[in-house]
Amino acid sequence: MYKKIITEIESIDREAGKRAKQRLDSLTKPPGSLGKLEGLAIRLSEITGQVPPEIDKKVHIIMVGDHGVVEEGVSAFPAEVTGQMVKNFLHGGAAINVLTNQVGAELKLVDVGMKQEIECEEILNYRIKKGTDNFTKGPAMSRKEAVSALEAGIRVTHRVIQNGCQLITVGEMGIGNTSPSSAILAVLSDHDLEKIVGPGTGLSPAEVKEKQEIISRAIELNCPNPADPLDVLAKVGGLEIAGMAGCMLASAAGRRPVIIDGFIAGAAALIACNLEPEVSNYLLPSHVSAEPGHRKIYDMLDISPFLDLDMRLGEGTGAVLTVHLVEAALKIMTEMATFAEAGISQ
Amino acid sequence: MYKKIITEIESIDREAGKRAKQRLDSLTKPPGSLGKLEGLAIRLSEITGQVPPEIDKKVHIIMVGDHGVVEEGVSAFPAEVTGQMVKNFLHGGAAINVLTNQVGAELKLVDVGMKQEIECEEILNYRIKKGTDNFTKGPAMSRKEAVSALEAGIRVTHRVIQNGCQLITVGEMGIGNTSPSSAILAVLSDHDLEKIVGPGTGLSPAEVKEKQEIISRAIELNCPNPADPLDVLAKVGGLEIAGMAGCMLASAAGRRPVIIDGFIAGAAALIACNLEPEVSNYLLPSHVSAEPGHRKIYDMLDISPFLDLDMRLGEGTGAVLTVHLVEAALKIMTEMATFAEAGISQ
Repeated sequence: MYKKIITEIESIDREAGKRAKQRLDSLTKPPGSLGKLEGLAIRLSEITGQVPPEIDKKVHIIMVGDHGVVEEGVSAFPAEVTGQMVKNFLHGGAAINVLTNQVGAELKLVDVGMKQEIECEEILNYRIKKGTDNFTKGPAMSRKEAVSALEAGIRVTHRVIQNGCQLITVGEMGIGNTSPSSAILAVLSDHDLEKIVGPGTGLSPAEVKEKQEIISRAIELNCPNPADPLDVLAKVGGLEIAGMAGCMLASAAGRRPVIIDGFIAGAAALIACNLEPEVSNYLLPSHVSAEPGHRKIYDMLDISPFLDLDMRLGEGTGAVLTVHLVEAALKIMTEMATFAEAGISQ
Repeated sequence: MYKKIITEIESIDREAGKRAKQRLDSLTKPPGSLGKLEGLAIRLSEITGQVPPEIDKKVHIIMVGDHGVVEEGVSAFPAEVTGQMVKNFLHGGAAINVLTNQVGAELKLVDVGMKQEIECEEILNYRIKKGTDNFTKGPAMSRKEAVSALEAGIRVTHRVIQNGCQLITVGEMGIGNTSPSSAILAVLSDHDLEKIVGPGTGLSPAEVKEKQEIISRAIELNCPNPADPLDVLAKVGGLEIAGMAGCMLASAAGRRPVIIDGFIAGAAALIACNLEPEVSNYLLPSHVSAEPGHRKIYDMLDISPFLDLDMRLGEGTGAVLTVHLVEAALKIMTEMATFAEAGISQ
């Protein structure tokens, strides 16, 4: 099924982008002086084909999955925290609840593979397995499981778009998931693990060194093939990472902009863009996180982050904060006066 | 009068900051994982002395002034555009109108020295003179004029605070004002003009080179004394730059956070902080602009920008965009659940 979705992804509408730029250049400001905010307005037009783009209904998707490698001590938190945080999301007490409320985005929680099962109708159940297997002992999952997790993301996003969503933001919850993300980045780039692996949500320098060795061992053992993104995803990736990659594929196929969050969503973006390069044109950046490999991911995707907040929480917090900027860009396009209207020397 | 205001500036409340940090560390996220957003919440508590801080009423102040040096060709736009843009602000058609509407901030326009007089009750008239004098031929203004402009900023801000404003954002309009800002930065730092002077709102590389020579000549002619910030302000500064510096002094004296906009507001911040170093603790950063000297200013103020949008418009657009982040930081502090409330392993 994911192969069909990939064939549905079309090029962005460069003509709409030209019309958007003409509109922006007619407004009472030096051309281009709003910088990336103007680039954003143009890109939203190219994605939607609309000038100005209509973006009202926003949905934030959180993909949740656990990681077998946590038993090696790669995270400052125990795996149980994934389930506890999901309950916190359901009760509205987490950072992401506060930020989605601020921007008026609906929150969708997707279980792609939690260790602890939480029966609750507010959680979309696409559970593939009870977390990945420990990738220092074998592949994190089978290729079939990776495809199922990818397709879970596609299904959820497809439904959300059918229900009228015009802007998607995507984030994750999964204790231990900077490890598979670092592994994906290392395999898909020529970067050294030393420059990629970071403290996640709170490791000491000695623990970071150990984490690096664990990831290095996992890559050596599993030999993921960098030319085959699904092989990389299955062997050293994660269920929620696959789910996010699916969100991105479906967003692109549905011509909806999708704001990617931090380092882990960035790793998912690398998988999605390796499956279909055109996806990158549908991705909007958000923040650059405290994780050292994150800037490298932005460089590989050839996009540049808007926010520099040293955040390292996940949940999609940076993506949702970026919605304010998307809305500012849209308002600039629709509410400003033109030079002609204002009678100003151009 | 400005000397009295300076004596009223107190240290920020580090105790309130500690209580804010305790509160933040009790919330359901790894400690510090929201990065600069947490630093912002702590700083707002230190400035206001409140945990959580009450910030509801927001006012954006635009200081307007013209620059004699424009006759040397240092700007891509003629001086008349200052007045035309002010009319545009009054009609609600400019970028800053759109952005202040988005965040619900009131807009105050202050004429500290426009070339063209616009009679209109919505413009606060603190007009010192018809723009500065051409600083390649003598000082931009007298010391007395610089003090009057500084005090105009103090008066406006004092009144705004008396009327209940809890957060101030500050920006400017003044064709040609990256030139005096570059001059201020060069005099107050040991940086080369070559690394400071940029294209403003739209010069070519050859024109930037010429602008650099013009500013260099002005500094040589006027010999501003780096140990005397008012001397620098008078000789190579600007009326609206002085007005913004006054806003910052009065905000600090009134224990109100003030978000500084881009390169020009940054130059004003250097003046204010050279008059009284404690002011820097009341300044909140916003974006880093396309102007090459801007990062240097942030380094000198020892603050780090939140937004990286390559903007170069002025008007305070970056400062006002930052209000979303201030509000996010406040909501995080008040609306998130604690670990105890959520029953999560810490």
